[in-house]
Amino acid sequence: MKFQSRPLLLLVSGPAGSGKTTLCERMTGAFPEQIRRVITCTTRPPRLGERDGVDYHFLGVEEFQRRVEASEFLEHAHVHGNLYGSLKADVHAHLDQGFDLLLNLDVQGAAKVRDVVRDDSRLRSSLVSLFLMPPDRVELQCRLKGRGLDSDENIASRLKVAEHEMLQWPHYDYCLLSADRASDFDRIRAIYLAEKMRVKN
Amino acid sequence: MKFQSRPLLLLVSGPAGSGKTTLCERMTGAFPEQIRRVITCTTRPPRLGERDGVDYHFLGVEEFQRRVEASEFLEHAHVHGNLYGSLKADVHAHLDQGFDLLLNLDVQGAAKVRDVVRDDSRLRSSLVSLFLMPPDRVELQCRLKGRGLDSDENIASRLKVAEHEMLQWPHYDYCLLSADRASDFDRIRAIYLAEKMRVKN
Repeated sequence: MKFQSRPLLLLVSGPAGSGKTTLCERMTGAFPEQIRRVITCTTRPPRLGERDGVDYHFLGVEEFQRRVEASEFLEHAHVHGNLYGSLKADVHAHLDQGFDLLLNLDVQGAAKVRDVVRDDSRLRSSLVSLFLMPPDRVELQCRLKGRGLDSDENIASRLKVAEHEMLQWPHYDYCLLSADRASDFDRIRAIYLAEKMRVKN
Repeated sequence: MKFQSRPLLLLVSGPAGSGKTTLCERMTGAFPEQIRRVITCTTRPPRLGERDGVDYHFLGVEEFQRRVEASEFLEHAHVHGNLYGSLKADVHAHLDQGFDLLLNLDVQGAAKVRDVVRDDSRLRSSLVSLFLMPPDRVELQCRLKGRGLDSDENIASRLKVAEHEMLQWPHYDYCLLSADRASDFDRIRAIYLAEKMRVKN
């Protein structure tokens, strides 16, 4: 019997501003042959240049709701009046083809995924969850400001949420203390390479 | 509660010629502040320049046997008429001080360690075992020849042993398929970094 790597579902989460999106983009860039991104379903209308099935799966509200009721989603959430979610069937299809998947979710979404995966033996053996921990409050504030996406008021409320979320790391397989981009990438890559060499879960 | 890395006992094993000694030397060289090597006890007399407590702990046969009977060894073995072994107390002392340990053992020694560790909760939570798998029979033969340590006859017998040992990978936490030195080092380093970020065993 020869050793074979198992396909991975690498779940990356952390508070807003922890840098998880940048990190995930670097990972898919570094392993383009092996790592696939889960394409999110959304009820919001496509923006200019966005393609259905590439950037998002664009679904009508009714179809989205029907699929929620049929438990077809690994996780889903309301964001600014629109629905977003990842389909279980999408995840299974990629894993069955031997690809690894990267799933970038907020802390609430990640908790839902861990819940669902508990009852799905195929996903359970593939799941590797990683919590990206911001270095500290001050640095997190700087990162949120630096994104230029939020007002000062929003930043204050995001920081409050982040402080609560930063207590969630014990529910993950790995805790990556964010330092700088190069070191963060080096260490998420290490987790990925190590898990590809893992014999049993 | 803040995340803290646990101290690791990184057990590296594999058939003779798999390259584990070179790999371990590179690891201790790369992390001199963090990784300690377990100093082996031996009954063989010191060679020129070898220092007691640095290269080996040199013990008399009687003392070694007494300590074997007192179950003080994590593992021990007869090699060419001499006794060799690693003391549990040594391993505990390093881990208690927060250092990581690298233990380079043959496949039989590694099996003994896994056995002993099962009944020692402190060591159990620190142990990470890694099997270094030679690329194939031909390459292994070349490596054994390249070391210049063995006669052709010895090499043939070592290959036979290696073929049996190469079936042992399912008993380890990780299986590293040896490629070249740079890639092997990159991947053992990845396992080390990842395990330092692990939340639970």
